[in-house]
Amino acid sequence: MTAPAGRAEPDEPDEPDEPVLPDLGRTFPGPFPKSPHAGYAAAETGRWLARFPLLEPAAAEALRDITCRGVAVTYPEADPDGLALAAALFVWFVALDDTHAETAAAADPAAYVRRIAGLLPVLGGGPAGPADDPFGAALADLLARLRERAGPALRHRLAGDLRDTLTATVWEAHVLSDPESVPLAEYLTLRRYTVLAPAAATMAEVLAPDPAGERALESEPARRLREAVCDLAGWLNDLASYRRERRRAAEPLSLPTVLRNARRCSLPEAFAEASRMCEERAAEARALIGELTADPAGPLAGYAARLGAVVHSYAWHIAHARYAG
Amino acid sequence: MTAPAGRAEPDEPDEPDEPVLPDLGRTFPGPFPKSPHAGYAAAETGRWLARFPLLEPAAAEALRDITCRGVAVTYPEADPDGLALAAALFVWFVALDDTHAETAAAADPAAYVRRIAGLLPVLGGGPAGPADDPFGAALADLLARLRERAGPALRHRLAGDLRDTLTATVWEAHVLSDPESVPLAEYLTLRRYTVLAPAAATMAEVLAPDPAGERALESEPARRLREAVCDLAGWLNDLASYRRERRRAAEPLSLPTVLRNARRCSLPEAFAEASRMCEERAAEARALIGELTADPAGPLAGYAARLGAVVHSYAWHIAHARYAG
Repeated sequence: MTAPAGRAEPDEPDEPDEPVLPDLGRTFPGPFPKSPHAGYAAAETGRWLARFPLLEPAAAEALRDITCRGVAVTYPEADPDGLALAAALFVWFVALDDTHAETAAAADPAAYVRRIAGLLPVLGGGPAGPADDPFGAALADLLARLRERAGPALRHRLAGDLRDTLTATVWEAHVLSDPESVPLAEYLTLRRYTVLAPAAATMAEVLAPDPAGERALESEPARRLREAVCDLAGWLNDLASYRRERRRAAEPLSLPTVLRNARRCSLPEAFAEASRMCEERAAEARALIGELTADPAGPLAGYAARLGAVVHSYAWHIAHARYAG
Repeated sequence: MTAPAGRAEPDEPDEPDEPVLPDLGRTFPGPFPKSPHAGYAAAETGRWLARFPLLEPAAAEALRDITCRGVAVTYPEADPDGLALAAALFVWFVALDDTHAETAAAADPAAYVRRIAGLLPVLGGGPAGPADDPFGAALADLLARLRERAGPALRHRLAGDLRDTLTATVWEAHVLSDPESVPLAEYLTLRRYTVLAPAAATMAEVLAPDPAGERALESEPARRLREAVCDLAGWLNDLASYRRERRRAAEPLSLPTVLRNARRCSLPEAFAEASRMCEERAAEARALIGELTADPAGPLAGYAARLGAVVHSYAWHIAHARYAG
């Protein structure tokens, strides 16, 4: 944490800035299967980022590296080009989030809304907008590649997931500077969308040789598993990135701070509750995966196993340097 | 226009508040076919509005009346329950727009963003949120009825259209009070989403016994026709509702005002240009419909004819009392 030079830093010494990371080892023990195509995906993503300069070179390089290693865990069975497509999608979103969302968007929500609204034609399958916006052009490229490998229902589902995540980042921009105004229920409802987790789950179907099909995906157990997995993504991210966020803002918009406000408890108590919530969600996901894969020929067996790998990638991610220090 | 009592009202006397309505009689001449089920749809919509009280009774009654007469023109071939479903969808959106979007949303964009973001779980097929929000519950009911009659691709497409329209209303909330900040290109890009026209076009496929299928809907001519039809919806609405909007705001966010700012021309010149633009778009739509229906067995013949009926409904609507006076 930075402190003004020469000034004592009281900073709530009874509320240490050390979140308690949950133990996922009992529900999702490693080692996790990994795709052998991470290197290929990284090379392709490098070429892609040269075509669509979403970030400055150093930041692009770091994001490409962590993303390609991550998707190798998320999609261990993907073919090489599918893995590269998934990597590009995550790079696109994280670059947008880092560059235009979060702090920048909270400083000028209207400008962020206009940027996101400008993507609507592309999200609907139209051509990219102004040539000077690499995000629109890159998204158009991603969706064109998606059209080549996914049927219409999955394509529309993924585009819907992207729209939802973008809307959730717009929501975040409007509440980021006033976390105390956000009730716990509202936070829990929306946090699951803000980390691209719904799209990550749908992408698992896009990359699967035997996707589950819409009837299965819309069923109640599939929805419950997806929600558990997406909640876990957001909450783990909140805990793992807390120290980093705390350097940016005295009061980050984050599960621990929202819990502290809702429960009127201390920050350490909120850390502990958030960590318990993650472990409970992980246990729910594990139980659902167990049920759905009990019959390997069941309609959701493949889907459940694939969402399990999505959880693996979180377990892998929270241990990684992106969130460290 | 209201003026402070006892005060002279200069009000730009050289810029009369009288938009020039375009002549659609050459491209889309009446009389238009009408469904015989408008009465059934009105009765069903009345019961639906009793379950989901989206508006005060008098406003609900007026909206139900105009909407059910409108959808009878938009979907002349729809079965009775399909027509009632379409009517409920439009009632839902217009009620949301009148109650929470536009002026109310511009006064507090963050509150509107939070309301719209709260609909994400329902848009994704989940259950309705807090029981005290009839809009969420009504939307969940609409989407459940949709699931009973449309395949997954069309369902996801329609949900995507709804998301886009809601995002466009969020955009509108952020720029409504400062129309001069909106470049013409941005306005033209987004106006086509703000009147639910994309969903109206998709609903035509939902209600058709022989929908065109995704490959056809995603083709270039289908996209061009859809864009022409959706542009026309927004632009005609701007001209037909201008006097009403002008009573609400000295400078409405509207095609004529955006054109006036872009061209640095007078308001009458902007009215005339907007009207010409409508006629040109109508001519484009007519030409595309002609091409696509030339072979009645062509893959887009039915779609093109159905979008023609969507245009009929605009021609019918702009003549109607909702916009009068």
